[in-house]
Amino acid sequence: MMGHPATVIMAQICDVQNRRNESGFKLTKVGVTGVRKLVHVARPDSENQNEPLICTIDVFVDLPAEQKGSHMSRNLEVIREIVNESTLNPVTGIEDLAATISKLLLKKHEYATTANVNIEAEYFKGSVTPHGKKTTEVYKLIGQAVNTRDGKLDKTIGVQCIGMTSCPCAQENVAETLGCSKEWPVITHNQRNVCTVIMTMDENDSVEADDLIDIVNSSFSSPTFELLKRDDEAAVVINAHTNPRFVEDMVRIVLKKIVDRYPELPDNVEITIRSESEESIHKHNAFAERTALMGELRE
Amino acid sequence: MMGHPATVIMAQICDVQNRRNESGFKLTKVGVTGVRKLVHVARPDSENQNEPLICTIDVFVDLPAEQKGSHMSRNLEVIREIVNESTLNPVTGIEDLAATISKLLLKKHEYATTANVNIEAEYFKGSVTPHGKKTTEVYKLIGQAVNTRDGKLDKTIGVQCIGMTSCPCAQENVAETLGCSKEWPVITHNQRNVCTVIMTMDENDSVEADDLIDIVNSSFSSPTFELLKRDDEAAVVINAHTNPRFVEDMVRIVLKKIVDRYPELPDNVEITIRSESEESIHKHNAFAERTALMGELRE
Amino acid sequence: MMGHPATVIMAQICDVQNRRNESGFKLTKVGVTGVRKLVHVARPDSENQNEPLICTIDVFVDLPAEQKGSHMSRNLEVIREIVNESTLNPVTGIEDLAATISKLLLKKHEYATTANVNIEAEYFKGSVTPHGKKTTEVYKLIGQAVNTRDGKLDKTIGVQCIGMTSCPCAQENVAETLGCSKEWPVITHNQRNVCTVIMTMDENDSVEADDLIDIVNSSFSSPTFELLKRDDEAAVVINAHTNPRFVEDMVRIVLKKIVDRYPELPDNVEITIRSESEESIHKHNAFAERTALMGELRE
Amino acid sequence: MMGHPATVIMAQICDVQNRRNESGFKLTKVGVTGVRKLVHVARPDSENQNEPLICTIDVFVDLPAEQKGSHMSRNLEVIREIVNESTLNPVTGIEDLAATISKLLLKKHEYATTANVNIEAEYFKGSVTPHGKKTTEVYKLIGQAVNTRDGKLDKTIGVQCIGMTSCPCAQENVAETLGCSKEWPVITHNQRNVCTVIMTMDENDSVEADDLIDIVNSSFSSPTFELLKRDDEAAVVINAHTNPRFVEDMVRIVLKKIVDRYPELPDNVEITIRSESEESIHKHNAFAERTALMGELRE
Repeated sequence: MMGHPATVIMAQICDVQNRRNESGFKLTKVGVTGVRKLVHVARPDSENQNEPLICTIDVFVDLPAEQKGSHMSRNLEVIREIVNESTLNPVTGIEDLAATISKLLLKKHEYATTANVNIEAEYFKGSVTPHGKKTTEVYKLIGQAVNTRDGKLDKTIGVQCIGMTSCPCAQENVAETLGCSKEWPVITHNQRNVCTVIMTMDENDSVEADDLIDIVNSSFSSPTFELLKRDDEAAVVINAHTNPRFVEDMVRIVLKKIVDRYPELPDNVEITIRSESEESIHKHNAFAERTALMGELRE
Repeated sequence: MMGHPATVIMAQICDVQNRRNESGFKLTKVGVTGVRKLVHVARPDSENQNEPLICTIDVFVDLPAEQKGSHMSRNLEVIREIVNESTLNPVTGIEDLAATISKLLLKKHEYATTANVNIEAEYFKGSVTPHGKKTTEVYKLIGQAVNTRDGKLDKTIGVQCIGMTSCPCAQENVAETLGCSKEWPVITHNQRNVCTVIMTMDENDSVEADDLIDIVNSSFSSPTFELLKRDDEAAVVINAHTNPRFVEDMVRIVLKKIVDRYPELPDNVEITIRSESEESIHKHNAFAERTALMGELRE
Repeated sequence: MMGHPATVIMAQICDVQNRRNESGFKLTKVGVTGVRKLVHVARPDSENQNEPLICTIDVFVDLPAEQKGSHMSRNLEVIREIVNESTLNPVTGIEDLAATISKLLLKKHEYATTANVNIEAEYFKGSVTPHGKKTTEVYKLIGQAVNTRDGKLDKTIGVQCIGMTSCPCAQENVAETLGCSKEWPVITHNQRNVCTVIMTMDENDSVEADDLIDIVNSSFSSPTFELLKRDDEAAVVINAHTNPRFVEDMVRIVLKKIVDRYPELPDNVEITIRSESEESIHKHNAFAERTALMGELRE
Repeated sequence: MMGHPATVIMAQICDVQNRRNESGFKLTKVGVTGVRKLVHVARPDSENQNEPLICTIDVFVDLPAEQKGSHMSRNLEVIREIVNESTLNPVTGIEDLAATISKLLLKKHEYATTANVNIEAEYFKGSVTPHGKKTTEVYKLIGQAVNTRDGKLDKTIGVQCIGMTSCPCAQENVAETLGCSKEWPVITHNQRNVCTVIMTMDENDSVEADDLIDIVNSSFSSPTFELLKRDDEAAVVINAHTNPRFVEDMVRIVLKKIVDRYPELPDNVEITIRSESEESIHKHNAFAERTALMGELRE
């Protein structure tokens, strides 16, 4: 297995990446993952015109069969240039940040035909408890761009929200078992649910992440809150038990609201809704997902 | 263990799941994730005819638009039945386990048209150091099945291996900067690389996970070992520096070996090779990937 | 910052670790972390006399001020020797495995005065649902040893269990808010709870991990199960609501059971009980912990 | 958002937590974990007077034996009050934030004798490559406070940095094996190293996290950088190979620099230094740690 004596012959101009590759295989994605950056975002109709987001950024371009290596450091130059600009001119969303980065990637990697950018960030947003107290809740934002040299740019906007689901099946089973009065909400198991919405569309179409968060929060058995005093805690529990939801229900309710909310979006918008319940009665999770085009959902 | 005087006698059993759903949306995947199971595997040509694997299992079926819920507990019954059988008749691989589970899922969920199964497990396998010492190394196995009611079953076999890559570009830069003698291998940065091979094929085709592990290990700048005494440590370092590899090189070398190793596999086998280097000189990772059909790779 | 030209002067006998260290600082712990090993365990009164456990092992020794480096590869030799023996003579528990490894560490690192070993493993154990169905549940085992050259060996046995807690406070708030009949269990929020028991004692004392798991499972609002058909699901929900528990209650109930269960254990046994609820109504967790000597708990 | 006709008017508010507990066990720590908050920090001598940090916050108080439950929602009120203030008056560091929170915890939990606060945050800080290019690097900050009602407040300041270590032992082994010229730096394995410094002191003593980061960065074989063009990449590799370091060396070098840097700190300051190398030649990590009082280190 030992290869020594080493003959490591060096060219005089050191640009290993530009050398010819003999293998004959192009690569689909070459780049960097896990780059952490502080980005400044301006939300259009928010009091906060300079929201700081800590982003985890992955960027990739494809590589033709003839070329040995991609220029990895150019990826970091691109990210840095765009992120630095955001401190002067805050970006309008991480999906727009992804789109801007993807364009500069294609410019700097002249051999590439496609650029891919994935960004994730935590996002703090005000909420209001059932009894009207203001809280701040945390969500995950997802922004992506796939940009091809022929000018097509697909961008993706996504959110991930944590809420509460209570099980309608166990509720009925218990009611039957105990012969419960239906006057009061019946006990069932309830738990954390993680619901994700991901929408991919043309560069010129758009949705607001804030709207997606509102849609998901209103689809849980109940949204959850960082601070609940007694009356609010009772209200959340009562709400959750008067709106029992399977993971299947969650996905379908969100789908319905998205179809209703965005009549102007074209049929080719791709939508993925995912709901995962960290079951209180099991050590494993329950899961439901739908992936579809907007056109299919409108049929 | 029961605290309440619940006589728990079910009369007309409620079946919320079978109710009609009004929303009109079918679901792509409904099921459970993160089920942990101890499975017994028999490797065909191994001394160990009863290898224990701790598997993390996800199973899903689709759900028609008219039906409110999937029967979640059936998923666990299916997993349990198949896993229990493995204690008597060890399965031949986790991709076969996935395939068997997917068949029983379609049987038990009579309304489903597709079943999806994903399994991951850690796998311990003997290795030999450059100087001939035996060690045991740990890998990740991936097994998947997508089974449709019309009889098509695609199975996926994958491995994830940790090895070492050393950078050819920095090696040349250093040689130039220092005007190094080429008599000895030149310094560069090297690091952990995580390389993943995933192959999807018809049920009747097959590859051995052990072969994929060998292919990946022989494609690193050097494989890595749990125990290295002085002479072996030196040999690993020398090997790694006489075989410098970009993440791009890793993917292409593995692609080449897979094309050469499996001439009998049909052109429609789908292959993904991924190489991610946890760069020692950066806090982020370098990444390369190719997704292709075997036919494309043979062109 | 650049240090070149490099003068890297080499001694002719290559044993860097044994060189004198000039800094004057001894080190508390030097070793390796994250070693993965398949270990065979024989449970005394189990049908399974050869239980496979996948262990994550950390081992450390201290290092005197005068010595430059610890011999890292000896740690792996020690682990390998003990683990290989377990395939012939299964160990009686991972705390005993930790103790045995710690003894050999002190033997092989002649300069060390203390050896530390931490082991964690997933453990599959049979359980029974309220209606008598058999299931298999997964737990985490913890085994540790701290061994000093003067002959003192403290060993640690721990378990981590996932169960269900329902909140007594929200239950009363809801009852008052709605003016609920107390005839039926009142709704509240419930969620996954992770409860950890860690006990440190002399080498000659011992507790069975299986007993600790039983104690924790019987202290949840309800234990949880991989497979629950309708009647069992209802029973688990009813149990959980007739035994509402704060995280504080969980810790105190487990403490009480441990004091009652082990009258023979000496007063110097150290006990940590920890209960963490992944709150369904919040995005954060609730937490309670007690660390005490057995003697303090008996007062 | 409320679905039930819950008028939610509380009459005689129930207060389960204040009830008497019969078990006789006090609890060491009761509180909440994993609270995410956006905090504004003003660094004393930085251009940025309003640094945003996303903090993960855990807070706990103890609970006397007689009391059934701690008032969990008060913890969130305390965190919210202090964090909201930080938007107007940025805090001077997360250890000061921890100290301020701990004081208000003792005020709001009148039954508690001790308050514990742990905070972690990612921190972006400018750096300069060997050839003088500016980059931004990411670190982890740690701030803690332990506050007792008798007026003693211990605060903890910590940093976690990622850098590069190259192995001195393998370097010598290779030199001997190959009979290398010592004119050029000899090859060895190198990898990501994660180094953590944690210092606990009286409230009135202090150290700057920025200084600790500088100390750690200057103790690696080389610090690492997000963006390295060719000349800088060569310089980092050359530096790393002219400054080979065991994990043991890392800890001792940092200890030495801390003793030298802080002559004014009292002998009772507690110091933990930890260095963990994600070994490129192994799948496991190498680890070294020292825990000591400043007085012991000065002997």
